[in-house]
Amino acid sequence: MLTLYTAPGACSFATHIALAEADAPYTLRFVDTAAGEQSRPDYLALNPLGRVPALVTEDGTLTETMALLVYVAQRFPAADLAPLADPVAFAKMMAFNAYLATTVHVAHAHKMRGHRWVDDEAAMEAMRRKVPETMTAAFQLIEDGFTGPFAMGEAHSVADGYLFTLGRWLARDEVDIAIFPKVAAHHAMIAERPAVKRALAEEAALPEQRTGAQEPA
Amino acid sequence: MLTLYTAPGACSFATHIALAEADAPYTLRFVDTAAGEQSRPDYLALNPLGRVPALVTEDGTLTETMALLVYVAQRFPAADLAPLADPVAFAKMMAFNAYLATTVHVAHAHKMRGHRWVDDEAAMEAMRRKVPETMTAAFQLIEDGFTGPFAMGEAHSVADGYLFTLGRWLARDEVDIAIFPKVAAHHAMIAERPAVKRALAEEAALPEQRTGAQEPA
Repeated sequence: MLTLYTAPGACSFATHIALAEADAPYTLRFVDTAAGEQSRPDYLALNPLGRVPALVTEDGTLTETMALLVYVAQRFPAADLAPLADPVAFAKMMAFNAYLATTVHVAHAHKMRGHRWVDDEAAMEAMRRKVPETMTAAFQLIEDGFTGPFAMGEAHSVADGYLFTLGRWLARDEVDIAIFPKVAAHHAMIAERPAVKRALAEEAALPEQRTGAQEPA
Repeated sequence: MLTLYTAPGACSFATHIALAEADAPYTLRFVDTAAGEQSRPDYLALNPLGRVPALVTEDGTLTETMALLVYVAQRFPAADLAPLADPVAFAKMMAFNAYLATTVHVAHAHKMRGHRWVDDEAAMEAMRRKVPETMTAAFQLIEDGFTGPFAMGEAHSVADGYLFTLGRWLARDEVDIAIFPKVAAHHAMIAERPAVKRALAEEAALPEQRTGAQEPA
């Protein structure tokens, strides 16, 4: 059994989708980032970086979306979630995921996580102001290179759930996904996959489940 | 033959080390980032993101350090540069590399690349000011988790050259690597590897080689 520590709306949803696509045995643990739970000692023991996702496996805890997506693909090969045996295709998928992690996610993080890189409020506000522009530029590059129907072309992969996950951030960042027709069509298609529907329903139920679990027996 | 587009001192040196460790057939192409060559049309045709590294292979151009390191490891398995067949060990190495790419590299980038995330000079100065603190915190986390002798423990991997590459940035970021004894010892050890010595010498010769090539015959 795998246990994914996740926060609704966070990048950890990409791993959640991968687990659902793989039909892996998994349970979810809600990390209330609004309440700062990711910085509490019990969570830092799982991930010293204090971020979701963390995936608890029989062989220890694993972190970082890019690593977890490949782990799920490699552990559940029947789901065919990555071109593991083709070095070129695998590198292209990893490069796509790396772009999402290092450019797209980082651009978005300047909206709410500016304190990571500056101390004063004026600079944080300057960061927030530019996020719509940087997110637009970041997704334009994806749009320009998009061949479809999937992120990596003909084959579905973990990159699709990852792109879907970060695409959900566009509205929050005041960018209309419709200005990227190919990305928008992909987003709509991925949302209809049974595994993604399941993951979306499970994600929506997370906060309530925890409230329930905390009630006295 | 592989062709690595690289800039001295940049993160592309991690891939350069990996190629040298693999004893791969490769040539280097100097990208003069100080002169903005990474933003010129011929380079953007290789990598639309306008960043090094780019690796030109027989099967097209590949980008993103995290992807290139795995590509080199997968393509030259005799060099044993990554635990490709062990999903847990591979995920841990990928997580380490992802941390370097998404946290360490991004922290460092706020010194010279602040224009990616803000428009005004005061905010860029606020970013520069915090870089010594963020780089210290980022490397402290590595130090705290370091078991050694290699980044991933007993086995050498592409993570070692990547850590070495970003460790070179500490001095520029006004952080003394000596405050991290384990990381400093690792850095000194990696510097003595024959492949790393070769890569360092090749990197040092890059700008001169290009000047020579530009002289009229």
